[in-house]
Amino acid sequence: MALPKQSEDFPGWYQEVVKVADLAEPSLARGTMVIKPYGYAIWERIQRAVDDRIKATGHVNVCFPTLIPMSLLDKEAEHVEGFAPEVFIVTQAGGATLEEPLALRPTSETIIWATYAKWVQSYRDLPLLYNQWANVFRNEMRSRVFLRTTEFLWQEGHTAHETADEAIAETLKVLAQVYVDTAEQVMAMPVHSGRKTAAERFPGAVETYCMEALMRDGKALQAGTSHYLGQNFAKAYGVQFQGRDGALEHAYATSWGVSTRLVGGLIMAHGDDQGLRLPPALAPQQIVIVPIARDDERTAVLEATQKLATELRAQRFRDEPVRVHVDDRDQVRPGFKFNEWESKGVPVRLELGPKDLAAGQVTVSRRDADGKTTAPLTGFAASASALLDEIQASLLSQARDFRAANTRSAADLAQLAEIATTSRGFIEAAWCGDAACEAKVKAETKATIRFLPIEPAATTGTCLVCGAAATEPATFALAY
Amino acid sequence: MALPKQSEDFPGWYQEVVKVADLAEPSLARGTMVIKPYGYAIWERIQRAVDDRIKATGHVNVCFPTLIPMSLLDKEAEHVEGFAPEVFIVTQAGGATLEEPLALRPTSETIIWATYAKWVQSYRDLPLLYNQWANVFRNEMRSRVFLRTTEFLWQEGHTAHETADEAIAETLKVLAQVYVDTAEQVMAMPVHSGRKTAAERFPGAVETYCMEALMRDGKALQAGTSHYLGQNFAKAYGVQFQGRDGALEHAYATSWGVSTRLVGGLIMAHGDDQGLRLPPALAPQQIVIVPIARDDERTAVLEATQKLATELRAQRFRDEPVRVHVDDRDQVRPGFKFNEWESKGVPVRLELGPKDLAAGQVTVSRRDADGKTTAPLTGFAASASALLDEIQASLLSQARDFRAANTRSAADLAQLAEIATTSRGFIEAAWCGDAACEAKVKAETKATIRFLPIEPAATTGTCLVCGAAATEPATFALAY
Repeated sequence: MALPKQSEDFPGWYQEVVKVADLAEPSLARGTMVIKPYGYAIWERIQRAVDDRIKATGHVNVCFPTLIPMSLLDKEAEHVEGFAPEVFIVTQAGGATLEEPLALRPTSETIIWATYAKWVQSYRDLPLLYNQWANVFRNEMRSRVFLRTTEFLWQEGHTAHETADEAIAETLKVLAQVYVDTAEQVMAMPVHSGRKTAAERFPGAVETYCMEALMRDGKALQAGTSHYLGQNFAKAYGVQFQGRDGALEHAYATSWGVSTRLVGGLIMAHGDDQGLRLPPALAPQQIVIVPIARDDERTAVLEATQKLATELRAQRFRDEPVRVHVDDRDQVRPGFKFNEWESKGVPVRLELGPKDLAAGQVTVSRRDADGKTTAPLTGFAASASALLDEIQASLLSQARDFRAANTRSAADLAQLAEIATTSRGFIEAAWCGDAACEAKVKAETKATIRFLPIEPAATTGTCLVCGAAATEPATFALAY
Repeated sequence: MALPKQSEDFPGWYQEVVKVADLAEPSLARGTMVIKPYGYAIWERIQRAVDDRIKATGHVNVCFPTLIPMSLLDKEAEHVEGFAPEVFIVTQAGGATLEEPLALRPTSETIIWATYAKWVQSYRDLPLLYNQWANVFRNEMRSRVFLRTTEFLWQEGHTAHETADEAIAETLKVLAQVYVDTAEQVMAMPVHSGRKTAAERFPGAVETYCMEALMRDGKALQAGTSHYLGQNFAKAYGVQFQGRDGALEHAYATSWGVSTRLVGGLIMAHGDDQGLRLPPALAPQQIVIVPIARDDERTAVLEATQKLATELRAQRFRDEPVRVHVDDRDQVRPGFKFNEWESKGVPVRLELGPKDLAAGQVTVSRRDADGKTTAPLTGFAASASALLDEIQASLLSQARDFRAANTRSAADLAQLAEIATTSRGFIEAAWCGDAACEAKVKAETKATIRFLPIEPAATTGTCLVCGAAATEPATFALAY
């Protein structure tokens, strides 16, 4: 029943938390997963938060098919090279062999840009600001529930623009206003925004921007990406428009996505040795009340519990009624219930027993803090929303503190290697911009450049590997 | 630009409406479609209405994978026989041949019941009340956007119960409280609830219940189904539980689904020769304002338009702000705009020009009625919600009237054939319960039994085909 300790076996801890909190499980086809009700309820709330922000920034949803004719996949050279090793291929249907095999989308740039070719004729047709919620398929050799599965759920935005500047602005707007805002304000997970090196770019992109979060084992997680694709896909799929000056031009593209991987990030950014810790904004149940009732006190306690639950449900947190669950199961003991809700990460647990009733109080356990406190029963409900706000803020601030404590500088490769093999975390170092130096760090330490500043920034100092004048401050980490 | 008339070429009309209203288009792999923003916005609202009701009736969402090992598909004999001819099969991934081919789910009973075998041990684990929103794949030979596509979007509920009675009650509850309620109260589309004959049942079901709607060409559309699966899947996949009496028993199953087909139903239940007609509850824009402004009157008209839009957006319809669009495009004439919004089915079109301003009025066109009226500008916004309610009710009542006018009785096969080849519509007839008589009607007239009463009901009279004593009143129609 007890989870492995994070400090001793983080991967084992992750696997057990996913199981004990009943979030998901591996399914029958290799590398696939079933997302169970509790896990899916968390994903639904992440999805709603992202979707609201996608719409608030002017985008609309569409739906393109999963099945893509193979010939279409081959048109953008870098893209196909990047994805070919991972593509699932349908060759039969209805007992017969298909004339042309069909790929399961690993991502949808190909079919979307082939379709945009029909939709875009003039600058008046631009921009196209489209997004879809979809499942995608990549044949991953080493799968891990939520983090890397052969099928996963995501949203993929695909926009088309008249100018490069507009497309780049779009890429950065989505990163900041959709992704970073959701990560920090909803998931309470602090992230760095940055730019990827050429080696870490999306296949076919001119620039890949990202948000990177730090997990509690000191490894980084790429939590979302936003790509500026230049005219690569427009050229490969013939998306041309008549510009304001009458000349034909290729459109400028972006694409951007976050996925069910965010659930994995949430688990590893906040969880502790007792299990999940959920920010109130995403918790399927924000408050669980456990009545402590035996024999003749039973009726009074259960009545008081229901009354409190009703009062709490009349309160609102972030424009929705507070989500309250009363755990009045007979067949399990309070201690078992406490453990269960703790491992499921419920932000607030309330106990109400005869002693509490006699004292006119309720016993309060916050999942973001140790120990129990008591509070007067009268007026407690009215304070619930503020309490949930406080917990939401406290999880974000704890994760920020953890990140600050686990961000270090390295002057050279030896220092970086030392940090990477002991405390881990983000490691800041000066870099000359040479891919060979980047590759050497990776080969020797497994650490990669997680991000560069969004805007190329001058730096002083010398490259941690070759000692030449540095051109960029880079942030390294071991990563998922 | 003009649409084919419904009375002359209904299939042509359907195809053109889908195109002109910019709902969807065929995509590149045979039988697939792209759902465009306007079509997807309608689907999103249907989806939200269905999802809210699924949750209100005690269900939770989950996510099972698309990829199903082929060996799993073969375990329920009737089921595999029904679906085998339509299944897409993945045989390759990452450049290599898979050890075991994977099916793309045509529906998910197989993988879900194989998984339930792990989740269900005791009666305490029941019921499982799970649903998922997913894409499914069926190799359809003759595809038609929204109505029949090789890939479509749907929700599929899969529940497991302790007793047959409980499972049957679940099947009927979902039909009434989720499907019929959404169809009538949200889509304004009247439906009959009924039970399918054995010939029309879902492969593997003990009973299939359905809702059937009448389209404006007199053909019926199966708009949603809810299946009682008995213990067939529990036996095929080994889902056993220890009952209250300690004995092992197989669980009882239901499954139920509605799909993007509903968008096709919406189009054909309400559309007219001018195009779509959308019920306000589903309309992406409920009110469009077209300012009629030239030269020096321009500023005053545009200001009044914006003021009216702001007032309208402050109103609420069904707990959401009224959705208002101001069409102030310069490059197109008002007449073009009127046509466009008419074909897109916007419930209310307002015109505001210098004459209106001078008279303190606004010109109002309702999509559910002919002609224009005027209303005082002052106070108009306050009446908007009631107006939208009225339109929602009027579309439902028009569709009900149409259905009543197109429901006829047939005493024998000749009469049924006469109706089926002329006016169409629902045709009520007495039936002896023999599948051979049912098949004869289909062979000679193409009409099928759309539904029987939910509860088998005695009937007088003689079978329309064989003349034997009738056992069931049956409702026939030509169908999509």
